[in-house]
Amino acid sequence: MAGRQLHLNVNTLNSGFYSSAWRAPSGDPRAFVDVAHYVRVAQIAERGTFDAIFLADVPSFSDRPDLRPFQALEPTIVLAHVAAATEHLGLIGTASTSYNDPYNLARRFASLDLASNGRVGWNIVTTADPAASRNFGADTVDAHAERYGRAAEFADVVTALWDSWEDEAFVGDKASGHFIDTTKVHAIDHRGRHFSVRGPLNVPRSRQGRPVLVQAGGSADGQRLAAQHAEAIFSVAHTLQDALDFSSSIRTQARAFGRGGEDIVILPGLATIIGSTETEARRREEELWALSPGDYGLRRVAGILKVDPASLDLDAPLPPLTRPADGMQTFFDALVEAAERDQLTVRQLIRKFGGSTGHRVLVGTPEAIADDIETWFRAGAVDGFNLMPDVLPEGLEVFVDHVVPLLRRRGLFRTHYTGRTLREHFGLARPASRFASAPAPVARAASGA
Amino acid sequence: MAGRQLHLNVNTLNSGFYSSAWRAPSGDPRAFVDVAHYVRVAQIAERGTFDAIFLADVPSFSDRPDLRPFQALEPTIVLAHVAAATEHLGLIGTASTSYNDPYNLARRFASLDLASNGRVGWNIVTTADPAASRNFGADTVDAHAERYGRAAEFADVVTALWDSWEDEAFVGDKASGHFIDTTKVHAIDHRGRHFSVRGPLNVPRSRQGRPVLVQAGGSADGQRLAAQHAEAIFSVAHTLQDALDFSSSIRTQARAFGRGGEDIVILPGLATIIGSTETEARRREEELWALSPGDYGLRRVAGILKVDPASLDLDAPLPPLTRPADGMQTFFDALVEAAERDQLTVRQLIRKFGGSTGHRVLVGTPEAIADDIETWFRAGAVDGFNLMPDVLPEGLEVFVDHVVPLLRRRGLFRTHYTGRTLREHFGLARPASRFASAPAPVARAASGA
Repeated sequence: MAGRQLHLNVNTLNSGFYSSAWRAPSGDPRAFVDVAHYVRVAQIAERGTFDAIFLADVPSFSDRPDLRPFQALEPTIVLAHVAAATEHLGLIGTASTSYNDPYNLARRFASLDLASNGRVGWNIVTTADPAASRNFGADTVDAHAERYGRAAEFADVVTALWDSWEDEAFVGDKASGHFIDTTKVHAIDHRGRHFSVRGPLNVPRSRQGRPVLVQAGGSADGQRLAAQHAEAIFSVAHTLQDALDFSSSIRTQARAFGRGGEDIVILPGLATIIGSTETEARRREEELWALSPGDYGLRRVAGILKVDPASLDLDAPLPPLTRPADGMQTFFDALVEAAERDQLTVRQLIRKFGGSTGHRVLVGTPEAIADDIETWFRAGAVDGFNLMPDVLPEGLEVFVDHVVPLLRRRGLFRTHYTGRTLREHFGLARPASRFASAPAPVARAASGA
Repeated sequence: MAGRQLHLNVNTLNSGFYSSAWRAPSGDPRAFVDVAHYVRVAQIAERGTFDAIFLADVPSFSDRPDLRPFQALEPTIVLAHVAAATEHLGLIGTASTSYNDPYNLARRFASLDLASNGRVGWNIVTTADPAASRNFGADTVDAHAERYGRAAEFADVVTALWDSWEDEAFVGDKASGHFIDTTKVHAIDHRGRHFSVRGPLNVPRSRQGRPVLVQAGGSADGQRLAAQHAEAIFSVAHTLQDALDFSSSIRTQARAFGRGGEDIVILPGLATIIGSTETEARRREEELWALSPGDYGLRRVAGILKVDPASLDLDAPLPPLTRPADGMQTFFDALVEAAERDQLTVRQLIRKFGGSTGHRVLVGTPEAIADDIETWFRAGAVDGFNLMPDVLPEGLEVFVDHVVPLLRRRGLFRTHYTGRTLREHFGLARPASRFASAPAPVARAASGA
């Protein structure tokens, strides 16, 4: 095994990405609130030497809870259970900068990072969901730019808090009674537009220094946030050209922020429906489609397109649409482009996206899926994928048992873990604390925040 | 085994209650940031059929971090690891109403309650720590009454959110595709002085209905909050008479709020230093005292008394003091009363309180400690204790192996768990959702919030 290596996360969308996953023969309706389900998925991913498990999140009651599962359990609580049941797998949790507080969030993720021995990532999102805003004292959603301004400052504060203990701050010398060297623990004294946080954090740094910053928004503001802060990106790409363009754009923007553009791991979403033959895969898709609950797919697509579901004719092409100024712009673009490119009716469009997601869906044999992954990876368009199996844990088990061996045989994917931390899995350097003292014998000098 | 039963929590103050616990031969300096330490303590407590593990919390860097461990790891992350490693033990975590948000807190504790199959308690505290306020955008601490006003409204919102799903809301019928009965999931539409929260929560109710509400403040405002909301109280009591008075006062106040005064479990703190003989116990205390780090005890006592440490003469009695309008009033009273009653110098006072805590410290044999516990319990002054062993896990192991068998033999304490949830351990009823529909055949009618 040599050369550049592929990275794979499993994005655990409750019962699986397909809207009807919970109704599939192997689906468990109660899985969405059962930590044992997430633990099972994680253990299969770890058997497949995946980089990480990824949990999405929205802090509100789902918009269609009558028809399918949603992210109910708070992600860090789930990931703590996964941490206790795994040894290597990375643990990426989503938490919103719109409805959290930087000190509490920094501390919770740092605690999980210590508890898991350096396996944690934080997926930074802003929340545009009006149902969420009403749970946090606001009747309206902040404008896009305002949300992203808050997100950027939030990430600054959180990373400063994660750096506030130098690596050598903990002493713990029983003989002398010296517990912590407080000259190596630093207030951050942040005073900004949205936050005023003195610090320091009350948690030391972890084995990987600090959690990996992940970002998933594809809008212009989202890309800027990613270019400035993200170490891994969960992107949306439907064509190889899209993926090449996105990668090039992000790396150029990152260099403008003074970063090495190559230090960012780009992982588009990839939904899979796998069969041992092409026919079997199509039949599986057919069965999941037939189980699609009620008008969920129509409402979901209408939600992305920001139109009234009643205004869409299932058997006609999409009407002319205006790109929304806010919301899921990347998914909007993906749907509109796919509908035009493939001349789809609304019904065909819903079906193409598995009734629920805006990500690319591959239906096929393990060989066909491995070929596709290899093509994108060798083209330099991606560093790997955020995998979204149709039904969990079954669809992941099939991927690990039938696709992963092919990727390994082709020299693309690890056969065993060579690192312990998420940074090591992703090939990311361990960051020094921004407050780190200069090494001896040079006199100690803070490098400033 | 029959009759009224004792309840025991272990209050895991990092390395143990004694300020020098981390320097004791069995102490581990790194335990405070090691989830495995908390898991070990919890497993010993579960072997001893304790009701729960209890974690304190302050969201700031400790005031004397150079000298001893402090609560660093975020409690719900620690408790999630404990949940994964235990089956019966209750899990009580502290979280401040001053620096949290009700929706996020309700969701995190509800998630942990589901994940642990109904074993969670939330210890409601307000935070008066200026170091904490500066981590949350405030340069000053809110006044006592204002903090408690916020706390009471916070608890109202959180319990309403925990009730927002009726028990039968989840359907999960694969055949019909009906996932959730949304007529049984309710917005709470709270609009109050401090919070505006629409709801519903996105997490269903747990096996015990909702987490147990615990309260630990002894001020007049704290007692009122406890009388109104608490199902278990972590109190401070140094004499049997104090404990009797407190219990009577709380139960009277609870009845004024329309509650059954007997539905509250009162558990004062009890710090223990145990030896197989009285002499051995005293020697153990002597050794821990000799290891007390620097001037930690002096600074801690001065902090409780709200005076400059330099103003205290170690070899003189306490100077005349004014009871502070805010801060740790219960501990203030305990210190001043003990100093007067036993004619102690400042040094003796520090030593009496184990160099660190304001709770009652018992030094003696397992028999003497069991006798004391039995006396207080049979007098009706307490329902049990929040145990604080001197050094962890060692001090808890000694208690479980040598004190618990005595309590069991006397018919005071369970020999095995008869329930599964924390409510069942505490003998508390499972609360119905306040939104619960009337039972059939009576027509459904919301009972209102």
